[in-house]
Amino acid sequence: MSAGDGRPSEDDLIARWFAPIAGPAGLALKDDAACLTPPPGHDLVLTADALVAGVHFFPDDPPASIARKALDVNLSDLAAKGAEPAGFLLSLALPPDWQPDWLEAFASGLGQAAGAGRCPLLGGDTVKTPGPLTLSVTALGSVPTGRMVARTGARPGDAVYVSGTIGDAALGLKLRQAPDAAWAAALSAGDRDHLLDRFLHPRPRQALVPALRAAASGAMDVSDGLLGDLAKMMRASGTHATLDLDAVPLSGAARRAVAADPDLLAVAATGGDDYEILATVPAAAAAAFETAALQTGMAVTRLAMVTAGPAGIMVLRNGKPVPIGAGSYSHF
Amino acid sequence: MSAGDGRPSEDDLIARWFAPIAGPAGLALKDDAACLTPPPGHDLVLTADALVAGVHFFPDDPPASIARKALDVNLSDLAAKGAEPAGFLLSLALPPDWQPDWLEAFASGLGQAAGAGRCPLLGGDTVKTPGPLTLSVTALGSVPTGRMVARTGARPGDAVYVSGTIGDAALGLKLRQAPDAAWAAALSAGDRDHLLDRFLHPRPRQALVPALRAAASGAMDVSDGLLGDLAKMMRASGTHATLDLDAVPLSGAARRAVAADPDLLAVAATGGDDYEILATVPAAAAAAFETAALQTGMAVTRLAMVTAGPAGIMVLRNGKPVPIGAGSYSHF
Repeated sequence: MSAGDGRPSEDDLIARWFAPIAGPAGLALKDDAACLTPPPGHDLVLTADALVAGVHFFPDDPPASIARKALDVNLSDLAAKGAEPAGFLLSLALPPDWQPDWLEAFASGLGQAAGAGRCPLLGGDTVKTPGPLTLSVTALGSVPTGRMVARTGARPGDAVYVSGTIGDAALGLKLRQAPDAAWAAALSAGDRDHLLDRFLHPRPRQALVPALRAAASGAMDVSDGLLGDLAKMMRASGTHATLDLDAVPLSGAARRAVAADPDLLAVAATGGDDYEILATVPAAAAAAFETAALQTGMAVTRLAMVTAGPAGIMVLRNGKPVPIGAGSYSHF
Repeated sequence: MSAGDGRPSEDDLIARWFAPIAGPAGLALKDDAACLTPPPGHDLVLTADALVAGVHFFPDDPPASIARKALDVNLSDLAAKGAEPAGFLLSLALPPDWQPDWLEAFASGLGQAAGAGRCPLLGGDTVKTPGPLTLSVTALGSVPTGRMVARTGARPGDAVYVSGTIGDAALGLKLRQAPDAAWAAALSAGDRDHLLDRFLHPRPRQALVPALRAAASGAMDVSDGLLGDLAKMMRASGTHATLDLDAVPLSGAARRAVAADPDLLAVAATGGDDYEILATVPAAAAAAFETAALQTGMAVTRLAMVTAGPAGIMVLRNGKPVPIGAGSYSHF
């Protein structure tokens, strides 16, 4: 049946666009539920992230990019826990003006992201909303029993590592909001493309899973800003880290942005949407961790050492403490 | 930290209201993810349902009732698959005017529903939305490996059963929308309370799980209207059922409503939100199924027989075919 306006009904849109991208456990999306046989000897790791148009992405972002982001922010959470993806469910609330073309492109992007992330669609729900497009993904992963990498495992003496580079997505968002800012003029077209792309397309660090499982005492993904997330991680373990801002790894584009406007270092360190992995690694395993990461082609940077000091973090710049609020810092 | 307006931040509201109702696998909601050890020798059954204020419930419904409904519609799906609940994740998109009192009552209702359904909170996400309150629940259940009751298992010769009574919720909704309708005047206060309650509070038929596992060839829950869902179930198996409308089990309240306005039988049979279970049972197991259901105190009614006729359903009233459209019928 159709909605009476030429657009397909829920059953039709599932059959047309989502069933073709479902994994075997999704039973072709013909049942009320998916049926997954968990790998024996493994725990299931479960995570959920919701995204709302106008809050977590721009309504006019390419639909395939929105789909990729909805899945990839969850794959980032799974990777940080040392989990291999097992599948995901999608709840999709469509606004009144949804268009078949849009949904076709969305499903196509979702299928590509599912394939790239080895995380098949298992099921979900499609409903109407008078509000903005809203997506909620629940992703499942597996780890050998008892081996999930917890957020709370940091111990004094561990090293704190972060993958990749920090701040690109936050600077990409700023560039999107104010493309004519003075600092943007200092960037090459390639720099701008890099930052915009990092905002639009998280890169879940699944390649790091073996290294994290082998060596990390604790880990989480950086989604709400490096400083806030590091503080959260230290508080969760009752440990301390003193971080020199100059140790924060920046891409070439981000370095050039900060050179043009030094205040942007604060944006980079607190802005969020990095989807890099923050991990604590016992000193004895640090060399092995660095080597294992390098072998995957994924750079990791040693940010700080975990100490027994007051739970949370202290941030230094040029050797002097920088006042930080809850998760973000007030100003340089 | 707070949102700066006296309302708690996401971390605070999770710690204050949701962490206390989390199950052990939810890790006190302090990690990015939950960690569930699946019972050995079992499959996991996964289902998701989204609810939007103004679409699936009234914005001024009691917050505890909204929470119960969000979980219970998922527990109904699990029960129909013969699955025991294992836990759920909740994505909550809060509108700008959300109030702490509301959220406290919501979480309290959610905790009660989780306890009653033996389905602990494992995790989720809380975000802001400029639109209406939107809830998405993903629930997990377990069945012995290979024993999920599929939607597609009906075979000619099977009997079709439905649990409980049909149409109460749809009539409750109609009563809610037009409390002064002529037919409503024919009902007692108790009848009206019954119908309104059935709309507000689904009753997931978890008690039927052992009987379904032991005897059902196929099952689904009735959420979109009995006739449409039965047609869907028959089409999924390539089978046929001819249903006499007089066989549809009605509560006393629904019977009195239909007596006052015969058109309401169509509402009852197609209206949805029943959350009863539709099951097909091979003839040899039918007596055992009825006995097992009775022993749980749950009435089941034999609706029809599955035949090899054209895939789908035919509906009779007074022995004559009633024209049905896709899922609903045009008129008597």
